[in-house]
Amino acid sequence: MLDLCTLGTGGTIPLATRALSSLYVRVGSEAMLIDCGEATQIQIQKLGWGFKCISTLLLTHFHADHVSGLPGLLLSIAKSHRTEPLHIWGPPGLTVVVTCLRVIAPQLTFPVVLHELPEERQQFSALGMDITAFPLNHGIPCFGYSLRLGRQRAFLPERAEALGVPKRSWGLLQHGESVTVDGRTIAPEEVLGPARRGLHLLYATDTRPVPAIAEEGRGADLMILEGMYPNEEKMDKALKNRHMIFAESAAIARDAGAKRLLLTHFSTSLEEPEAFLPVARAIFPETDCAADGMVLTLRYPAE
Amino acid sequence: MLDLCTLGTGGTIPLATRALSSLYVRVGSEAMLIDCGEATQIQIQKLGWGFKCISTLLLTHFHADHVSGLPGLLLSIAKSHRTEPLHIWGPPGLTVVVTCLRVIAPQLTFPVVLHELPEERQQFSALGMDITAFPLNHGIPCFGYSLRLGRQRAFLPERAEALGVPKRSWGLLQHGESVTVDGRTIAPEEVLGPARRGLHLLYATDTRPVPAIAEEGRGADLMILEGMYPNEEKMDKALKNRHMIFAESAAIARDAGAKRLLLTHFSTSLEEPEAFLPVARAIFPETDCAADGMVLTLRYPAE
Repeated sequence: MLDLCTLGTGGTIPLATRALSSLYVRVGSEAMLIDCGEATQIQIQKLGWGFKCISTLLLTHFHADHVSGLPGLLLSIAKSHRTEPLHIWGPPGLTVVVTCLRVIAPQLTFPVVLHELPEERQQFSALGMDITAFPLNHGIPCFGYSLRLGRQRAFLPERAEALGVPKRSWGLLQHGESVTVDGRTIAPEEVLGPARRGLHLLYATDTRPVPAIAEEGRGADLMILEGMYPNEEKMDKALKNRHMIFAESAAIARDAGAKRLLLTHFSTSLEEPEAFLPVARAIFPETDCAADGMVLTLRYPAE
Repeated sequence: MLDLCTLGTGGTIPLATRALSSLYVRVGSEAMLIDCGEATQIQIQKLGWGFKCISTLLLTHFHADHVSGLPGLLLSIAKSHRTEPLHIWGPPGLTVVVTCLRVIAPQLTFPVVLHELPEERQQFSALGMDITAFPLNHGIPCFGYSLRLGRQRAFLPERAEALGVPKRSWGLLQHGESVTVDGRTIAPEEVLGPARRGLHLLYATDTRPVPAIAEEGRGADLMILEGMYPNEEKMDKALKNRHMIFAESAAIARDAGAKRLLLTHFSTSLEEPEAFLPVARAIFPETDCAADGMVLTLRYPAE
């Protein structure tokens, strides 16, 4: 299960009622953020999911609206008395930007581990998820992120019973360890069901359309894409500033065969994004607009 | 006349309902800020007094809660299409801190002029005010600021008439220029009343008590001092972190003969500052607690 909160859904400049980009992702007792625009620490306070559990920060790029909340976020995490490392992943420039911004947050209670990735497709793990960073097209190095949370295979108690495994040993098998029963080794394979589909979240903002978004988001349970501009009337701005209009994001979700699309990162000129939802839904019906503080839970499908 | 708004009144870490330190000061059509903690740009949007008119920023010191909103503030001012310079004044470290924070705000529509002051009493002018920066005691270089807005001497029309000055020349005299009437030079002195008291604002947060605060704030119309901790129970923290308790700030306002005291920069542990107002008012009755978005106008006294 994945808990998500769109902490801030504004692009470029915040509105009084719309904070800058940040997504809170919680898996069990551990959390990550994708981006941390100004006021992210305030949005997390309002949400109430806590700071101490934040182990990971994925940065898409280094425009201020995606990273200006970093010093405050670090200090709020420090105030929560976290001592375990915070891992920050991001495109080229990460070390310079974080080092510079920490001029006002030099002393923390935890180590900050920087993972500055080259501007090409990269894979790594965090929060037990397989994460892929892939380049977008925004004029400066910018990543989209694909997050895949695996699902344990089902434990089949009837098989364990048939094999005579005492109940006290079931937990070991569930966690992938073999046990010995009457001198015979029982492998987890023997008491676990077939592989099960996990959860797949794709996040990409601040880009012109690129094929990688649909490729990396193939069949995703949720795509979070930008809704910077609502329609064709703003296409000149979308081209100039390398952003997408609603229809372009919706077409990507459709082409990827995603289950659901959430639009975020709205232009300051876009006061009521919902008013333009029909444009997107005509292309991909399962589209919604995010809002600050919106909470979603992605659950494993029933089988 | 001076318009003020306490944009943010929190110290260290913001609360969901309390932004970090920033004071908006407006004189006519020009404005300055004292400090700019995270979310200052959002607070200014809520206030609605604008970004383009901001010509000056006074920074007290470089703890994050006083300066973390700088990149966003600069970008919001740029978005307002300001082209005139923005002057930033602050203690030693100013150049390094602003340069580092601008890693995410490199391109602006206006020049940023830095005035890094040595850690000693300094005087300069901004918004037509005489400003004094003076060192406080906070463990790192930290300034208090005294702002004095002069008042023009009254124009005495009966004297101008008696001297035969035609009305079309009154404006010149009011603005300090001499005029010639029937071959005789009339100096402004001859048609202006006595010197008049202007307005005096003193701002000092993040410090243990130092004599300079009362000295620089002698007879001030308004002192804005910190209310980081409410009472003696927190004196160990006040001493350790170099802050003041309510009673200490109230005693300074009393000793300075100030007209009014506003407490700000409240600790996150201080949920209801007003509950402790009686402690301060027992020492200095004209004490109030600031709140985010509180607007005050200082008017010239009636004469």
